[in-house]
Amino acid sequence: MDSGRIIYLNGEFLPEKQARISVYDSALMFGDMVFEMTRSFNKKQFKIREHLERLYRSMDYLHIKIPHTIDELEKICYEVLDRNDKVFAEHDEHRLMVNISRGPLSFYSEIFDGKVEPTVVITDFPFKWTVATMGPLFDTGVNAAIPSQRAIPASLQEPKVKNRSRMFYMMANIEVSNMSGDRNWALLLDPDGFITEGTGSNFFIIKDNKLICPEPRNILRGVSMEYVINELAPALGLEHEYRNIEPYDVMNADEAFYTATPFCMVPCTSINNYKIGDGKVGPIYTKLITKWGENVGVDIIKQIKDYGEEVSDLRAKQKTMPSTYQFVK
Amino acid sequence: MDSGRIIYLNGEFLPEKQARISVYDSALMFGDMVFEMTRSFNKKQFKIREHLERLYRSMDYLHIKIPHTIDELEKICYEVLDRNDKVFAEHDEHRLMVNISRGPLSFYSEIFDGKVEPTVVITDFPFKWTVATMGPLFDTGVNAAIPSQRAIPASLQEPKVKNRSRMFYMMANIEVSNMSGDRNWALLLDPDGFITEGTGSNFFIIKDNKLICPEPRNILRGVSMEYVINELAPALGLEHEYRNIEPYDVMNADEAFYTATPFCMVPCTSINNYKIGDGKVGPIYTKLITKWGENVGVDIIKQIKDYGEEVSDLRAKQKTMPSTYQFVK
Amino acid sequence: MDSGRIIYLNGEFLPEKQARISVYDSALMFGDMVFEMTRSFNKKQFKIREHLERLYRSMDYLHIKIPHTIDELEKICYEVLDRNDKVFAEHDEHRLMVNISRGPLSFYSEIFDGKVEPTVVITDFPFKWTVATMGPLFDTGVNAAIPSQRAIPASLQEPKVKNRSRMFYMMANIEVSNMSGDRNWALLLDPDGFITEGTGSNFFIIKDNKLICPEPRNILRGVSMEYVINELAPALGLEHEYRNIEPYDVMNADEAFYTATPFCMVPCTSINNYKIGDGKVGPIYTKLITKWGENVGVDIIKQIKDYGEEVSDLRAKQKTMPSTYQFVK
Amino acid sequence: MDSGRIIYLNGEFLPEKQARISVYDSALMFGDMVFEMTRSFNKKQFKIREHLERLYRSMDYLHIKIPHTIDELEKICYEVLDRNDKVFAEHDEHRLMVNISRGPLSFYSEIFDGKVEPTVVITDFPFKWTVATMGPLFDTGVNAAIPSQRAIPASLQEPKVKNRSRMFYMMANIEVSNMSGDRNWALLLDPDGFITEGTGSNFFIIKDNKLICPEPRNILRGVSMEYVINELAPALGLEHEYRNIEPYDVMNADEAFYTATPFCMVPCTSINNYKIGDGKVGPIYTKLITKWGENVGVDIIKQIKDYGEEVSDLRAKQKTMPSTYQFVK
Amino acid sequence: MDSGRIIYLNGEFLPEKQARISVYDSALMFGDMVFEMTRSFNKKQFKIREHLERLYRSMDYLHIKIPHTIDELEKICYEVLDRNDKVFAEHDEHRLMVNISRGPLSFYSEIFDGKVEPTVVITDFPFKWTVATMGPLFDTGVNAAIPSQRAIPASLQEPKVKNRSRMFYMMANIEVSNMSGDRNWALLLDPDGFITEGTGSNFFIIKDNKLICPEPRNILRGVSMEYVINELAPALGLEHEYRNIEPYDVMNADEAFYTATPFCMVPCTSINNYKIGDGKVGPIYTKLITKWGENVGVDIIKQIKDYGEEVSDLRAKQKTMPSTYQFVK
Amino acid sequence: MDSGRIIYLNGEFLPEKQARISVYDSALMFGDMVFEMTRSFNKKQFKIREHLERLYRSMDYLHIKIPHTIDELEKICYEVLDRNDKVFAEHDEHRLMVNISRGPLSFYSEIFDGKVEPTVVITDFPFKWTVATMGPLFDTGVNAAIPSQRAIPASLQEPKVKNRSRMFYMMANIEVSNMSGDRNWALLLDPDGFITEGTGSNFFIIKDNKLICPEPRNILRGVSMEYVINELAPALGLEHEYRNIEPYDVMNADEAFYTATPFCMVPCTSINNYKIGDGKVGPIYTKLITKWGENVGVDIIKQIKDYGEEVSDLRAKQKTMPSTYQFVK
Repeated sequence: MDSGRIIYLNGEFLPEKQARISVYDSALMFGDMVFEMTRSFNKKQFKIREHLERLYRSMDYLHIKIPHTIDELEKICYEVLDRNDKVFAEHDEHRLMVNISRGPLSFYSEIFDGKVEPTVVITDFPFKWTVATMGPLFDTGVNAAIPSQRAIPASLQEPKVKNRSRMFYMMANIEVSNMSGDRNWALLLDPDGFITEGTGSNFFIIKDNKLICPEPRNILRGVSMEYVINELAPALGLEHEYRNIEPYDVMNADEAFYTATPFCMVPCTSINNYKIGDGKVGPIYTKLITKWGENVGVDIIKQIKDYGEEVSDLRAKQKTMPSTYQFVK
Repeated sequence: MDSGRIIYLNGEFLPEKQARISVYDSALMFGDMVFEMTRSFNKKQFKIREHLERLYRSMDYLHIKIPHTIDELEKICYEVLDRNDKVFAEHDEHRLMVNISRGPLSFYSEIFDGKVEPTVVITDFPFKWTVATMGPLFDTGVNAAIPSQRAIPASLQEPKVKNRSRMFYMMANIEVSNMSGDRNWALLLDPDGFITEGTGSNFFIIKDNKLICPEPRNILRGVSMEYVINELAPALGLEHEYRNIEPYDVMNADEAFYTATPFCMVPCTSINNYKIGDGKVGPIYTKLITKWGENVGVDIIKQIKDYGEEVSDLRAKQKTMPSTYQFVK
Repeated sequence: MDSGRIIYLNGEFLPEKQARISVYDSALMFGDMVFEMTRSFNKKQFKIREHLERLYRSMDYLHIKIPHTIDELEKICYEVLDRNDKVFAEHDEHRLMVNISRGPLSFYSEIFDGKVEPTVVITDFPFKWTVATMGPLFDTGVNAAIPSQRAIPASLQEPKVKNRSRMFYMMANIEVSNMSGDRNWALLLDPDGFITEGTGSNFFIIKDNKLICPEPRNILRGVSMEYVINELAPALGLEHEYRNIEPYDVMNADEAFYTATPFCMVPCTSINNYKIGDGKVGPIYTKLITKWGENVGVDIIKQIKDYGEEVSDLRAKQKTMPSTYQFVK
Repeated sequence: MDSGRIIYLNGEFLPEKQARISVYDSALMFGDMVFEMTRSFNKKQFKIREHLERLYRSMDYLHIKIPHTIDELEKICYEVLDRNDKVFAEHDEHRLMVNISRGPLSFYSEIFDGKVEPTVVITDFPFKWTVATMGPLFDTGVNAAIPSQRAIPASLQEPKVKNRSRMFYMMANIEVSNMSGDRNWALLLDPDGFITEGTGSNFFIIKDNKLICPEPRNILRGVSMEYVINELAPALGLEHEYRNIEPYDVMNADEAFYTATPFCMVPCTSINNYKIGDGKVGPIYTKLITKWGENVGVDIIKQIKDYGEEVSDLRAKQKTMPSTYQFVK
Repeated sequence: MDSGRIIYLNGEFLPEKQARISVYDSALMFGDMVFEMTRSFNKKQFKIREHLERLYRSMDYLHIKIPHTIDELEKICYEVLDRNDKVFAEHDEHRLMVNISRGPLSFYSEIFDGKVEPTVVITDFPFKWTVATMGPLFDTGVNAAIPSQRAIPASLQEPKVKNRSRMFYMMANIEVSNMSGDRNWALLLDPDGFITEGTGSNFFIIKDNKLICPEPRNILRGVSMEYVINELAPALGLEHEYRNIEPYDVMNADEAFYTATPFCMVPCTSINNYKIGDGKVGPIYTKLITKWGENVGVDIIKQIKDYGEEVSDLRAKQKTMPSTYQFVK
Repeated sequence: MDSGRIIYLNGEFLPEKQARISVYDSALMFGDMVFEMTRSFNKKQFKIREHLERLYRSMDYLHIKIPHTIDELEKICYEVLDRNDKVFAEHDEHRLMVNISRGPLSFYSEIFDGKVEPTVVITDFPFKWTVATMGPLFDTGVNAAIPSQRAIPASLQEPKVKNRSRMFYMMANIEVSNMSGDRNWALLLDPDGFITEGTGSNFFIIKDNKLICPEPRNILRGVSMEYVINELAPALGLEHEYRNIEPYDVMNADEAFYTATPFCMVPCTSINNYKIGDGKVGPIYTKLITKWGENVGVDIIKQIKDYGEEVSDLRAKQKTMPSTYQFVK
């Protein structure tokens, strides 16, 4: 079945099903690929430039060089969005994904007619799938569940580079899926025992009206996280600091939440089933997400709940997958 | 240009260029894929069963379940080999690669017409490309170069599972490619400072006629490594032990070598440009690889050198890539 | 209700309910107490001398000095057993517990009429309670569940001293009690990621007919563990070694089991719900426990199952407690 | 000899000698007990509410649930104080201790007539004993002695929970008692080499008129410490920060002191016998403790010295105990 | 050839060639020596008092006691400078070095006629040699090269004590000398992966107009570093903070530079050959060094370039030495 | 006073007092010097070749190259010994010391008339001074005292290279000198908490007739240690193994001892004042040192005691130095 959506692949616009990468590509050989994913609000991309800037930093770090300037790449992104918009529903939002790898390893060049170059793939699909099952969590909050799996620290593999070598995320998700309860989201500790991040999301606590994030060392420096810190918090007169956070601090926080591009902010009302504050969605969280919604002209929670209704079939199917919520970024 | 080679992809035999994996697959999303690569000697596969057994252990570890039994998968492998053999040259060897991932993430199921299942890709290509540039190293030996990048220890990500989350291998290779000299192969330390492995190969030292490998903790337990230990060494009356090895031990060893499936064994004659023994290819190394060649009926070094002649164009091209030798497995 | 059982407390034989320690005692102030627990087979104490020898080593380590020699203390133990036997049922076994602390802190001496001396408490109770709920586990085996809580390594607190500062055991048990399934027993990793022990038991794997235990570094050197190693294994022609063991090794073992004084040996048939071997109780385990039973003249498993029938009320009550099995030693 | 003092034990008011806990209680089995100790100034309890709040956080952390609300528990505390006051001397202060454990382990329930519930013990005794020997230290200051024993970090056992699994405190005290000099107080490093706390006290340095404490990670967050930071320092116009502190920083500080409930603040004039500042009791310390005394209407140092005179017999006896000062909290 | 320069050695003024220390001295036996090196601007010593104060702190740390007060030692330094000035050229600057060790070990006292006392050696030589080859680096900037060798952390050996046990600096320099390129300066990570310092210099990054240094934990607290922070930065209205810095932060900085006494500040324009900012010498660096030059009345860069011309013979010779720049402090 | 003894310094034979090294030498600048010390028995050098072989390995590790072959260097050593023997007493033994450094740093070459070359210093002095105070220890044994200072692990600085960057040895000795008792010798733990070595000596335990040394990782591989292992133990039918050893293992050993070149073997009868075995000098120790004495024709203990009598003045003087015994190697 052809979705009608197109993707960009190294200079060509192709049907969505062609968004595939050779098994001889360094992306698959070594998890040697960087990426970004964005979303729209009312079809308008949010912070796409910030995402692309981080993408270029990631490429630099890995010594991957592509022929496009950031302006050129941004233009291609918009072209993908434009071409697809006609097959999106009126109320759909765009979820853009940009993947860049070093390309096929040189000694497989014969397979590629001698041409080995970096791989650039840009895809676009309806945002609603990503968040289809999340609606109820905005009412209950998630439970932060700490697995035995530790986050790989930056001294061994740089998490600030948005890369694809994340098998340990999957191991953490599998572990958490075996815990009792259906609101569990993995929250990873680093080897020193400090809170880092979810498996595709950042983590905040609120204590005495101050927002607190882990020192931005063993975490991705998320675009949503920085939006909360640099734009929402000041607008609401809230202070923020980065600090080493331990599970004990989370237990004794007033509120907590996760941030990520698709769902923006989801409340976290317990950690290892220990209530945070009174165990309910907190007032500061609510103010922040309300403000965010106002800024972008979308009722963020309502939209996600509505999508949930729309794709209830999909939701049913996903229930059979372990820890689906975790796979969101 | 169609090579005529076919591959296996989830039940179908397709042209080689279709050996591609969706960007929505967990393999690319998380580096969540396991794999094996084998080779033939005189067209006869070597230790394919051992490779497949490790593959199933890897799948179990990651909780990936495919519908094929190991016998069925082995049969498919042989079918791929058979179908391709007619387009291989007489003197070519087969390099088989089996990749298995969890498959597309559930919330992208709509793209796959609702069907999300594990991904199984089997490819086969002429072995010669892999080793085309290696010939001279059998005369000089490589220099083991210790980069700043440390191996991720098993407590954080299990290297005994042959997985694709290996961005740190690439970081190590990039680092080593910046060192003086053209015989450098990365040799990784773990965070405790112990020798682990190359970026796709195992490492041995020889001291007082005994073969010594790192404790098999933070390394892949290589099929070639185990062949040397369990079959070649006893046949030559050599003892073996696993032990924590430090750079100092390598410096004071009599000989050293790397093992991996494609090249079997390559001598290592120095570490950080410090001579091991007299800095020449050693007698025990030579006995071992000679014995190996006798066992499989192939002059292993000569074959690689001959391939080098054959594909000298390829070699020229590869010279422009950093640390090509490292990418071999 | 008076049980009729007596205990020994610093020179006196008192009713069981007097087995109490002052909150001003160093035992409670600092968890500064050492202990041993033994059991009988057919009313005959097993390895009591070995337990007492370890107790004296523990006291020495903590610089606790009591007035009794080991012979004297052993004699007191037997006197406690003798005095109680008349109120034990015919088929009951004795579970002896010896606790020794430094005694009340000096600045509370006024409360003790100026007399602060080490505290020695010896109790004795029917063994059946300890194992009342374990019967079914001998058929299914337990599931080794690795919690996020790590074992405190010997460099920070010596686990080879059988001491009472074990809050982290309780934290691990609480964590495991929140996992799915009803056969979970905590299995602790040390900070290096190596297997250590259960929360009151030792752990073995069997691979290729060899018994393997963790290096005896971050574990209690259990009397039952040493009995298996030094007496049962040789009698059955099995080799044994101490080695650093990782979860990967357990997953790839043929069999596994836990040992501890009350239940002797319980099979472990999975780790993190990943089958060990074929996931069934293994033949070597069965040979070992059978041999043990022969040596002591008791069908160990049958006895425990019988006790389970006898105290089914008790069992019902215990079901409401988290991870009861874990509390056994 | 009956002191006339009473204690509270699970609903009953009993003579002081009944402040005992069963050896079958989790408190003794696992060091699984939390506690608080307070003191009065002129018979008025100081910060009792803050202590109880921390006690409830500790219980939550350990998943111990008692039937009393914090208000109820506070009321019981006051009842204990009231009942005892008549047997206290006019000039005596009250030292209250609240201990709470999970209670007897479930499989010993038969011993307790089937009733296993959390254990709550509240005691009260004359404060003077605790500080009887400390008088001279206010003139000389103590010497912070760094033992080989490291503090167990929060990632392994949470020191912010005021718990009883502190055997390592005793090991540190024993080590320090073997060093030359009679003013030694243990000062523990964590495994990273940072200053943490004493064995029952917090630690401050003063540098350039700023108070500095260790990052509140591997330490108890002491009520006295927080009183100095949040009330005394601001009143005197002194800044404060939490920071990783190394021995080098202590050596180069202007002043230093320990805080704890009984003695409030004791000056620390050297570390490993290396003078801090000029090696004398410093002016900022003196201002702080003077202010504290004013706030509570007691000359803190004088009271302790007077008690020393009163209980000189006790002091003589305590001299024979190792490092008595250390046992104070 | 007699240079005419004199040195001070334990009370005597001797010819420069007598600046030698016995092999039986603790300085050579254990690297047990502390030191300072200063320089002049227009013959006027810079921050000599601050250097001597650090020297006394270092001696205190190592429990070395010399008979001179700091005032006396400063006076001796000036006497050495005065006596030598007549043999220095008009345009020469003085490079003073003060070395202090515990002196000969006691059981070699017979060699020293029974007299074992601390060793104090003060030397003075033309500053130009130290910086003779550095001129070009002020135009290109250096490349910060991260070797495999890690800095020894303060918990194992205190780098804030300016001591002579620095074999690991030499190992790092040797490693870096083997990397491609001729602008490489070692930049050491600590075992946690944080940036520390060069092998004899401090390191700064500039981000958003703020100067940032590593937390002053595993580094020497350099006099030049503190001059930049406390005097130059405020004068130019720049903020400063100490923070844990990772290679990723350096890569994403706007500018970077090293500081040390002889060269004051040298620009760092890349790290591991990855450009910092635009890869050119940055404007804030230029402002800072210009300001420094104004304060001391010397065009710092020009002076170093001029010296390079003068001692071009020397430069030629030094080219044959590995990583000469690194040896400068 | 001229001793009459001569030394060798870069090609010249000079009076002993000329055994001095420039402060501009890398040896003093960086602790960048390697060395060996030997002794004679009845004037015959012991294992001098083994010492020199280790010296060459050390030089290789540090990339120091001298013009002499090992044979040439050995010849020079013997010439030094020969020239000095005439000024030694009949009963004196020779203590030879060979020091080699990289030489003066290149930018100080002007001071050395442009000639910078490695520094080779060989000295020789009466052995008796080294051991003058040790006699009584052979009767009582030493007490192994574990300081807070940890050994620097091989991953940060290679202890198997006999180098001069050992400030941390001195810090450990200072710490131990502050402990109660006069038989204390430092015994260092590595950061993992394993026993390593003394500050200039190796450490053995004996358990069940087996000699056990720490894994030879974070220790110098001592010539005396290897003599005990490879020659004495086999001659007496004793087994030996290398193993990670913890303080608990030492406490529970039967015997223990230190080895080093000057005193060969000294008994260790306690650790942290906790008796090892019965706290007396053990029979296996006695057999070993007796055998050693027979092999070399010297009553080792008697000779040391006799020297003690001879140099009692010296001993008196040394008593004022902290932990003198520690400085022996």
